[in-house]
Amino acid sequence: MKNVYLDNNATTRIDDKVIEKMMPYLTDNYANPSSMYDTAHVCANAIEEARCQVADFLGVKNEKNIIFTSCATESANTAIKGVVSHYGNKETKNHIITTQVEHPCVLSVYENLEKKGYKATYVPVNENGELNIDSLLSKITPETILVSVMHANNETGAIYPVYDIAREVKKINKDIKVFVDGVQAAGKIPIELEDTDIDFYSISGHKFHAPKGVGALYVKKGNLFEPLMLGGHQENSLRAGTQNTPYIVGLGEAAKLAKENLTYELTEVKRLRDKLENGILSSVKNAKLNSKSSQRVPNTTNIGFEYIEGELILLYLNELNINASSGSACTSGSLDPSHVLRAQKVPFTSLHGSIRFSLSRFTTEEEVDYAIKNVPEVIKKLARISPFQDELKALGL
Amino acid sequence: MKNVYLDNNATTRIDDKVIEKMMPYLTDNYANPSSMYDTAHVCANAIEEARCQVADFLGVKNEKNIIFTSCATESANTAIKGVVSHYGNKETKNHIITTQVEHPCVLSVYENLEKKGYKATYVPVNENGELNIDSLLSKITPETILVSVMHANNETGAIYPVYDIAREVKKINKDIKVFVDGVQAAGKIPIELEDTDIDFYSISGHKFHAPKGVGALYVKKGNLFEPLMLGGHQENSLRAGTQNTPYIVGLGEAAKLAKENLTYELTEVKRLRDKLENGILSSVKNAKLNSKSSQRVPNTTNIGFEYIEGELILLYLNELNINASSGSACTSGSLDPSHVLRAQKVPFTSLHGSIRFSLSRFTTEEEVDYAIKNVPEVIKKLARISPFQDELKALGL
Repeated sequence: MKNVYLDNNATTRIDDKVIEKMMPYLTDNYANPSSMYDTAHVCANAIEEARCQVADFLGVKNEKNIIFTSCATESANTAIKGVVSHYGNKETKNHIITTQVEHPCVLSVYENLEKKGYKATYVPVNENGELNIDSLLSKITPETILVSVMHANNETGAIYPVYDIAREVKKINKDIKVFVDGVQAAGKIPIELEDTDIDFYSISGHKFHAPKGVGALYVKKGNLFEPLMLGGHQENSLRAGTQNTPYIVGLGEAAKLAKENLTYELTEVKRLRDKLENGILSSVKNAKLNSKSSQRVPNTTNIGFEYIEGELILLYLNELNINASSGSACTSGSLDPSHVLRAQKVPFTSLHGSIRFSLSRFTTEEEVDYAIKNVPEVIKKLARISPFQDELKALGL
Repeated sequence: MKNVYLDNNATTRIDDKVIEKMMPYLTDNYANPSSMYDTAHVCANAIEEARCQVADFLGVKNEKNIIFTSCATESANTAIKGVVSHYGNKETKNHIITTQVEHPCVLSVYENLEKKGYKATYVPVNENGELNIDSLLSKITPETILVSVMHANNETGAIYPVYDIAREVKKINKDIKVFVDGVQAAGKIPIELEDTDIDFYSISGHKFHAPKGVGALYVKKGNLFEPLMLGGHQENSLRAGTQNTPYIVGLGEAAKLAKENLTYELTEVKRLRDKLENGILSSVKNAKLNSKSSQRVPNTTNIGFEYIEGELILLYLNELNINASSGSACTSGSLDPSHVLRAQKVPFTSLHGSIRFSLSRFTTEEEVDYAIKNVPEVIKKLARISPFQDELKALGL
């Protein structure tokens, strides 16, 4: 079997149509889009077309509200640091709220701001990864300037009610800014930002078949922030640096394709994900679904295998050319168990053996069948060498 | 005549060999380099090979001292803000020095830090764009924490003695950090950072035939800084964000090729630049070379055409498919005359009519001959409609 890629929340394959659209800008159309001659205007125009495509994808009417960045980490750093620099001060406007299950690119910025004297509240989630809106709202104080909540979780796929959260936050204080990390929602569920109370929304190209190294930040009209990248006048002076025409064009095309493929994602990708999930859960006795009853994006399943070591599972799956992950790629190299699953109070028995499988529109039935056949074999093999023989026997293994 | 591209300081064409090296990482090798499986290790290894290539290009022994970024603007923002955040405070370590002729990505950060309470000194240059080292050193105070000087100027090509400056700064106070913006030096003159006193050095891929949207920052061992991008553990936790494997691989290959082509740059590109420069200066009576006697990179000439409007020259050259520029692409859209030429006290008679021509190893003799033939024609045409008829007649036009 060739490589079976079930790690599409870590990154995705670039769509061939995206590459095709990018190629002229990697070759002949190389002018600096800020230059004054015709060959440069060709590039500038292509960037504006991509801006419209991304706006359309996010349900935003005015494409001027879209800023291109180098990645979602940059988008999140820009929004959070930029809001705090512009609207915050360490005396009276010094409180920021987020959840315990955010991506490191949000949590790290919050922790950094804490070191600098700001106060941060990390709202917990329940065992299914669900966030209680009232609990979040109860943390708001007169000092609060920013609330950050992800649209969908990268590890479990849990969807958060970000439109409702933004509306309720603004009811309490319309000056509080709301940032939504939309990286894992983009391409998986519909996004409609116009007429919502969300102030900032970030996406990453490489999670929906555009290249790694390009992202976008939606900024609702009227919101100010200190740019992270200072320099030239690019991106309406909100993000300095020569624009990466090929990747921006690729991001636009990928956004267009993601919108076109959304129904497929919500039906066929979901069918394959459910088949994989049910296939594993029904044939592996020590398997438990994490984030069971929560709303989830259609491509993701996170399964805990009790009393088995996750890194070992990945190693064995790798031998069979199956790519999956434990935790996020951004925390790879760390042996700490996932902060997301810990926040959901996943018991230690399956915390270290939780594996994320994430599909895409390129995932085939054949690949899913291969995984359904092989994952249980791997777990059985590893159960035989587990130090928890009594516990596994009690489960029927 | 097809397009004659004489604006290589704004950006360059990607070398076909660079594209070829990138293509597998834009297609089959798409795994997240931080992931744990074999297909991801292929990408991680390619990134480390590129890191070695960039280190070799910069004359740096330990490739671990190279960090990949999304562009030179990010590299400069990272170094300057990062040093000030880590080593500075607003009471006793609050002074930063740079020159009046830096790129906007340095000047904007300095101006932003001034707004935040830091003190900045902008050292002037003389009429040839030369910097007086003693004058710069005389600005150092016990509060000084950072000196930033560019290696070569983007508009005039003037080379600054950055190795000497770093050495002399450290003699006064070894704790002062030295950042060098090497964007316009890379690929044009030799760079040897090992055993120098430079602490941080930035380069941009798209100035030497790699794509736009990738850069690097050299950080000499022992220097600490607060990362600009907070999030995952990538780049040794100094630059979060999923690594852009294709562009990083491209940057590595472009660095290798730039090193191989350096002799060609210093001889053949220089010969063509000199031919172009002499061709225009000898046949256009109101043409004057800016930064005349200074050390210059081999590919750049900046010529002032007295009593003619620069934007008009560019417009007419565009009609003839000749691409050149006034000022930098990063300040395009602004009608203010170049801050670099103003710092050099270029008289107003040619300040508004100064044009930069910048060549590359892809520039041909035929293209240079075409420019030598056509630029004087354009100037003659524009002289006829200039409001400064008496002054132009006095010059013999």
